[in-house]
Amino acid sequence: MSDRLTVWAPAGLGEVRPGDDLALLVGDLLDAEGVADGDVVVVTSKIVSKAEGRVVRAADREQAITDETVRVVATRERPGGLAPLRIVENRLGLVMAAAGVDASNTPDGTVLLLPEDPDASARALRRALRARWGVDRLGVVVTDTAGRPWRDGLVDIAIGAAGVAVVDDLRGGADAHGRPISVTVTAVADEVAAASELVRGKTSGRPVAVVRGLGRYVLAGGGPDGDGPGARTLVRPSADDLFREGSAEAYARGISATRDGVGG
Amino acid sequence: MSDRLTVWAPAGLGEVRPGDDLALLVGDLLDAEGVADGDVVVVTSKIVSKAEGRVVRAADREQAITDETVRVVATRERPGGLAPLRIVENRLGLVMAAAGVDASNTPDGTVLLLPEDPDASARALRRALRARWGVDRLGVVVTDTAGRPWRDGLVDIAIGAAGVAVVDDLRGGADAHGRPISVTVTAVADEVAAASELVRGKTSGRPVAVVRGLGRYVLAGGGPDGDGPGARTLVRPSADDLFREGSAEAYARGISATRDGVGG
Repeated sequence: MSDRLTVWAPAGLGEVRPGDDLALLVGDLLDAEGVADGDVVVVTSKIVSKAEGRVVRAADREQAITDETVRVVATRERPGGLAPLRIVENRLGLVMAAAGVDASNTPDGTVLLLPEDPDASARALRRALRARWGVDRLGVVVTDTAGRPWRDGLVDIAIGAAGVAVVDDLRGGADAHGRPISVTVTAVADEVAAASELVRGKTSGRPVAVVRGLGRYVLAGGGPDGDGPGARTLVRPSADDLFREGSAEAYARGISATRDGVGG
Repeated sequence: MSDRLTVWAPAGLGEVRPGDDLALLVGDLLDAEGVADGDVVVVTSKIVSKAEGRVVRAADREQAITDETVRVVATRERPGGLAPLRIVENRLGLVMAAAGVDASNTPDGTVLLLPEDPDASARALRRALRARWGVDRLGVVVTDTAGRPWRDGLVDIAIGAAGVAVVDDLRGGADAHGRPISVTVTAVADEVAAASELVRGKTSGRPVAVVRGLGRYVLAGGGPDGDGPGARTLVRPSADDLFREGSAEAYARGISATRDGVGG
């Protein structure tokens, strides 16, 4: 028998409302099967946002997207009179379509913003759940769903984390031939988010999952050491990013720059 | 009890060599714990490539990258006299650093190319394993490790697949408020690859994993219907991609285009 990863997502959480004690709801939900030392509790950003009251009235979803936008990365016209698709960097540093503003699974006339600080949300949830269950090593990951360049389809990623080594840094290790591994840093928290999506699904109303068997990535203790670096550290600063703006936008900027230069 | 996803990666495969019967090796490895109807067998592209003899002598790794390149997407200078990092589209349509050419875990003076056709490799493995075990629903996913724009760290993705619904297309479904879900297409095969990486790790010598509990995504039968669309369908055509070239490259092209226009 090898080490096993087990992932499950219990049904029965019910609708989360502004002001709800999310740790209480999640704790009650997971008590039936129990949580063990080394487990990671994965929650969607949607329920975190709902509990934190991030549902806002928005007759104009486009304005809500603008308000969340720090930097426009790329846009694409859409047919049928729809507003252009905007891929932007939001205030969390995340590059996402519509800034991560969500108009699905919310009442008409409202949109759901991402949590104010998903790493802080993860830390608060971890603190409460550690206390409730008396477990030392416990991880919490807050997920959202994101598109990617170059590949079709969406995957879940980690936008908040506490108690998890969000990356597995193998630099400095050796491969099976004894040669140094120079470049491999695995985004563990994103892979945890992806694994949890497989059991949660999008329409099944199961926004909470438990991932068991990753104890080597799960941190012990309270406080900053136990909380770890957080998912924000997975965000690559745009200055370091070879794809910091869309190809068409960069091309147009090149043309403008030259024209300005020629005209000046 | 909710549906569970269970993932494990047995140790003990040993070194794979050119000409090895991979289905035989994988089958023998997994027999100890048994495989069930609805399971997905996940293998790294590395062992597929090795079995298929894709280890090539390459005094010059850079030339091997050039040979695998269809289109240069972005480049970055590297310090210390290293050749520039090249992110390219390779002949499989995959956008990857170094075209997916691998110089780790291979003997000195050689590099490992990606499989010639990873979907075909997955189909062949599926055919042999279905016959060996007499299971009707069986999935096979071939993984590789890839970087992403905007986020640090690498994740595993699916570059080959057979017997798996590589996407879960929820378009046309309804959310919990009865409103249509308009845009959600989940890249299931990529999430399976990511989940399997969590148990395989990079240095543990466990390149084969089994994912159990995803029966709803696993196809029955032989032939094209049972094999399904393959992972190639996850590749977004570059013409549709807002990030088809690096920001600096697109900007430079804009400048050149204008200068050419001005000079012409």
